[in-house]
Amino acid sequence: MLETLIDPASFICPTPLTVRDKIVLGHGSGGHLSANLLRDVFLPLFSNPVLDRLDDQAILDIGGMRLAFTTDSFVVKPLFFPGGDIGSLAVHGTVNDLAMGGATPLFLSAAFIIEEGFPIEMLQRVAASMSAAAAAACVSIVTGDTKVVERGKGDGVFISTTGIGVVAPGVRLSANQARPGDVVILSGSIGDHGTAIMASREGLEFETTIVSDSAALHVLVADMLAASDQLRCLRDPTRGGLSSTLNEIAQQSKVSIAIEEKKIVVHDEVRGACELLGLDPLYVANEGKLVAIVAPEDADKVLAAMRRNPLGEESSIIGVVGQTHPGMVTMRTAFGSSRIVDLLPGDQLPRIC
Amino acid sequence: MLETLIDPASFICPTPLTVRDKIVLGHGSGGHLSANLLRDVFLPLFSNPVLDRLDDQAILDIGGMRLAFTTDSFVVKPLFFPGGDIGSLAVHGTVNDLAMGGATPLFLSAAFIIEEGFPIEMLQRVAASMSAAAAAACVSIVTGDTKVVERGKGDGVFISTTGIGVVAPGVRLSANQARPGDVVILSGSIGDHGTAIMASREGLEFETTIVSDSAALHVLVADMLAASDQLRCLRDPTRGGLSSTLNEIAQQSKVSIAIEEKKIVVHDEVRGACELLGLDPLYVANEGKLVAIVAPEDADKVLAAMRRNPLGEESSIIGVVGQTHPGMVTMRTAFGSSRIVDLLPGDQLPRIC
Repeated sequence: MLETLIDPASFICPTPLTVRDKIVLGHGSGGHLSANLLRDVFLPLFSNPVLDRLDDQAILDIGGMRLAFTTDSFVVKPLFFPGGDIGSLAVHGTVNDLAMGGATPLFLSAAFIIEEGFPIEMLQRVAASMSAAAAAACVSIVTGDTKVVERGKGDGVFISTTGIGVVAPGVRLSANQARPGDVVILSGSIGDHGTAIMASREGLEFETTIVSDSAALHVLVADMLAASDQLRCLRDPTRGGLSSTLNEIAQQSKVSIAIEEKKIVVHDEVRGACELLGLDPLYVANEGKLVAIVAPEDADKVLAAMRRNPLGEESSIIGVVGQTHPGMVTMRTAFGSSRIVDLLPGDQLPRIC
Repeated sequence: MLETLIDPASFICPTPLTVRDKIVLGHGSGGHLSANLLRDVFLPLFSNPVLDRLDDQAILDIGGMRLAFTTDSFVVKPLFFPGGDIGSLAVHGTVNDLAMGGATPLFLSAAFIIEEGFPIEMLQRVAASMSAAAAAACVSIVTGDTKVVERGKGDGVFISTTGIGVVAPGVRLSANQARPGDVVILSGSIGDHGTAIMASREGLEFETTIVSDSAALHVLVADMLAASDQLRCLRDPTRGGLSSTLNEIAQQSKVSIAIEEKKIVVHDEVRGACELLGLDPLYVANEGKLVAIVAPEDADKVLAAMRRNPLGEESSIIGVVGQTHPGMVTMRTAFGSSRIVDLLPGDQLPRIC
């Protein structure tokens, strides 16, 4: 496992982007550079109270009803990988971003940007996979768009999915709600999606049986909401992995988070692939896992509910929320030492989702 | 002006796509090939009652409220053009698709797919333009996403915007509601957007002062809804131009539409550019115009309301709805002859929006 020895000062105040800079792959990584881009380009221009919450979904109050609204573009490469493809991923990713807001997912839109020369047969496979994933998650794809770009100006197909869901009265989940004393629960193993993608990527010839964990988590979330009204925050650790998710929660809630390495499940084959590829599983994307911040008194109830769901069988309490260093995530390693778990400094895994 | 002499049979039943086919630029044109792609790939897999309406927006019934929901990817080239850029276009396009459903636009999402190496300065200009267009249209960008793809796997920046609006009780607009006897109103000149893009495209060096008509039409629509409760259908003639829009309405309503060429405003400079480029203005995209199908008794009221709005000053009645050849659009030319106005057979103007 790589040690990330980052100056904590750079973590609080990374170098601002200037107009002379250019976009690099790391700006899409979900780490430091993504945060810079958001902070220095998009937020100053788009700022409004809903966006500024910086959750994975906007919660909109329309006519007394609370709707969750979320969008994601999917540019994963390769398009087909063990455990899924860009179509199922686009549905799961958006369903999960709705679910993390405590919403029941209802409707999706799908916008396709297709490269000239892309085989119709592959497009049909992708669309069939989206259709099956949507049906399984009980959401309808109700509107869409198709654009075509010249050969060499795209890469097969990119899909942007946007979702709408309804948030039940009383449910208020946000990354700014973690409080000292809360418990951090992780719903299962980490690193499966990212290593499955990397292992199936052209040029990487090593053989594994690692399968992406891509899955829709809305039923797991419903089980958790039924078990407790003391959930503070749910997040799915996708791009940037578990480390980014915990850092975002720590920063937005102005708390510290301390986790224990030995509580975090990493399947042997994933650990082996990560060592081979020089990756730290903490930074590798997942697509069927969630992190929950829960009031301590309800932690056991929530954990039990999660373990009863097939997608939460390997759930465990991995840490606690504190107040010593607001915005900082630390981990007690398997060797008993402690280290800072920073945001990904640059780009570890481009085009993983 | 080009004569399109298409066998009407090919119009009713174009050749089905097969799995051996590949995507060509025409599949993104808004014409015949786009319709094939929708019919042969997406609709069979995604079919549901909301999607199958095939309007520019889904109308969702959530908790007794009717919401409009629409998505579009924008891949326009060049990114900056006279009268706008990809950012303002992405806002106007989505606001207009909501407005065509009779909705008050409220919220937008924005998902960016950026090519490695894209200058931050250009991204800031695009985002600033989106921000200004959103503020002018009284919508908030409440959620978003950013992905980065390798150099040569994208083209600067693509933007997918999705919008949510609220439809007032009693407003029911759809392309399937045109009835024989209804009147066809066009809100102004055609061809400005597409020719502005083409004239500013690399390699086309001729000088023009043509400016895109890109604009948000929701206030014009509100004025029209206030003037009459007998609006049947609104559509903005974007990709594929006026011809595609009228064909879609004729097909979905199973009516014929007869228009008069001399009633259709084409500015001289646009006409000249179209002649130079070998384009038919009927097929050229607009981004600030709408077509309205209105009950005959309210046509004058609606027309008057439109002409009072600066974006509808050049509105005129351009035709009538009939029942002779369901699904067919015909035009009496300036020379007094009549011709079929078909969907664009292939691709005239790639990447215009």
